[in-house]
Amino acid sequence: MTGLTPGATIGILGGGQLGRMLAMAAAQLGYRTHVYCPDTEFPASQVTDRVTRAAYEDRETLQAFAESVDVITYEFENIPVETVGWLAEDVDVFPDARVLEVSQDRLQEKAFINALGIATAPYEGVGSADEAVDALKTIGYPAVLKTRRFGYDGKGQAIVRSEGDVKAAWKSLGSDKNIVEGFVNFDMEISVIVARGRTGEVKSFLPAENIHTNHILDVSICPARIDQGLLDEAVALAEKIVAELNYVGVLAVELFVSPDEPRLRVNEIAPRVHNSGHWSIEACPTSQFEQHIRAICGLPLGDTRLYGQAVMKNLIGDDILELEHLLADSEANVHHYGKLKARPGRKMGHVTRLYPFDHKVDV
Amino acid sequence: MTGLTPGATIGILGGGQLGRMLAMAAAQLGYRTHVYCPDTEFPASQVTDRVTRAAYEDRETLQAFAESVDVITYEFENIPVETVGWLAEDVDVFPDARVLEVSQDRLQEKAFINALGIATAPYEGVGSADEAVDALKTIGYPAVLKTRRFGYDGKGQAIVRSEGDVKAAWKSLGSDKNIVEGFVNFDMEISVIVARGRTGEVKSFLPAENIHTNHILDVSICPARIDQGLLDEAVALAEKIVAELNYVGVLAVELFVSPDEPRLRVNEIAPRVHNSGHWSIEACPTSQFEQHIRAICGLPLGDTRLYGQAVMKNLIGDDILELEHLLADSEANVHHYGKLKARPGRKMGHVTRLYPFDHKVDV
Repeated sequence: MTGLTPGATIGILGGGQLGRMLAMAAAQLGYRTHVYCPDTEFPASQVTDRVTRAAYEDRETLQAFAESVDVITYEFENIPVETVGWLAEDVDVFPDARVLEVSQDRLQEKAFINALGIATAPYEGVGSADEAVDALKTIGYPAVLKTRRFGYDGKGQAIVRSEGDVKAAWKSLGSDKNIVEGFVNFDMEISVIVARGRTGEVKSFLPAENIHTNHILDVSICPARIDQGLLDEAVALAEKIVAELNYVGVLAVELFVSPDEPRLRVNEIAPRVHNSGHWSIEACPTSQFEQHIRAICGLPLGDTRLYGQAVMKNLIGDDILELEHLLADSEANVHHYGKLKARPGRKMGHVTRLYPFDHKVDV
Repeated sequence: MTGLTPGATIGILGGGQLGRMLAMAAAQLGYRTHVYCPDTEFPASQVTDRVTRAAYEDRETLQAFAESVDVITYEFENIPVETVGWLAEDVDVFPDARVLEVSQDRLQEKAFINALGIATAPYEGVGSADEAVDALKTIGYPAVLKTRRFGYDGKGQAIVRSEGDVKAAWKSLGSDKNIVEGFVNFDMEISVIVARGRTGEVKSFLPAENIHTNHILDVSICPARIDQGLLDEAVALAEKIVAELNYVGVLAVELFVSPDEPRLRVNEIAPRVHNSGHWSIEACPTSQFEQHIRAICGLPLGDTRLYGQAVMKNLIGDDILELEHLLADSEANVHHYGKLKARPGRKMGHVTRLYPFDHKVDV
């Protein structure tokens, strides 16, 4: 058959909940998985055929891993680019190292997006607190100072409301490769989960509306409650990005929706399955996880139509204490990631509810 | 919480596709699984946290297995009753040994069903070819001679059309504990997947219509195309059976639907998840696999309503060669069990399609 035949093994770098749900989607299609993760105990280990516990810098173990699998992917974008480069000498890795490089660096990422004619927040790369002060003269206050690399869930960023904040903010980042980002006046944050297959075929899910609490995704609602024109435009932008990157796999594009022109600005892209697409497990014929497996294995992409309005709620930290009630709620599709300890900010699971399209969500 | 807390480990005896789909359902709820199976290579090993490869008679290894888990269940009813008895000394096993004993023996099973006032085919236990000839004088020809134990997918049975067939049929079974079953004049075979929780709560899925080819399930259609009265009656019979057995877990009840009274006769019961309930993965909020996990873990049972008409087709042997087309069919939810070799009669996967309730199935 075209693409990898079921029975083949998919290597996954990273063993968190995304790796876990990728492994389960792979299994439904008959693929085996081999998860590579530096941790001793991790969610994906419970649902995979093989596990390698080693560092991402351990070149010898990486090579043995590459030789044991038929294709490699990853669950998060903070894998070292060199790691992917080494692996790619032996086996296909999707998405490729170039994409990883772009998405690891906020400066490169924004430059790439702008080069496609797509708006982002105003930004400037800065190498010192003084440069930041200079850049902010153009960009204006309030603004956000962010590290160029390794930021997620609100980590690696600080708000600056006036010049007096800059020094302390700079120090708090602990990095001297940063960017200054101007505030965007937005009504809503949305995301598009888009997939591109090995043959160039592209399919998107409907955009979801994302509500964050303490910088962590709290609720996603799909479709986002914006007009059809904006939904279509957001999908078109996401599809332009994957086409331009010759991307293979699922990519998440986060956007701000503004009352002013340009109505859509890309906030960031994530070269992987994404928390804001978890509703697709119940709400669509093909989940984002299955879609990613299909894309990297060279299978035709699956159907992404939405059965109804979907509302996904993350279970973060002690939210997991609601589990008993959720399990008794016939509308709740409960996912528990198998993590034994709840810590503040730790993603422990999620719940998806499906409603008719005309349902009024109370969020 | 009431019931086993996610993070607990479920032991599963048997590692085929049913064990595999049970393990995946357990993982979605955050449970770990430990699969015990005598085979070297088996489908469930690819999706479970732990594996023990040993015989069902290996008491020492069974004890270590029991000590490593919080509850035990099984994927098929031909596990030795003693094995379950040994395990139950150390840990809860659901369904219990008594149920297993009844369902392993066609004679006990039919006597139990009849004692509830529920019809079966006419039958008689026979210990020799001569006894069979005698019994057939009452039951009449044609009839089926079946081994009392270890029959499935048409194995362990032979049709007898006249007295002249009995001797050869008897010999072909290779057993001297058999039963004679009269033919039932039926229009359709249906099954009810019913669950009973540890608190006594009972929930059924809608009955499915089952079409067999070469004695192996080929297609299940849910709901079965019979009138509402019969659907309700079938569910009531299934719920009576689980209540009477103090059953815990999912049980499948296979029934014949006749044009004559009694319209429903129980063919057999299977104390486990069942091939004729696989459509529940996509067609219901809770699948039969999740329902079984909920039941044995002491959680509330999940919602069993049907989203639409479901048609499940088994992929048997070389049917798996259609895989490429199925993966390109946006209506097909494809499940591949990860078995590397297709043999005639081997269940390699299945495909479920969902339609509106008023869809006319062409089967």
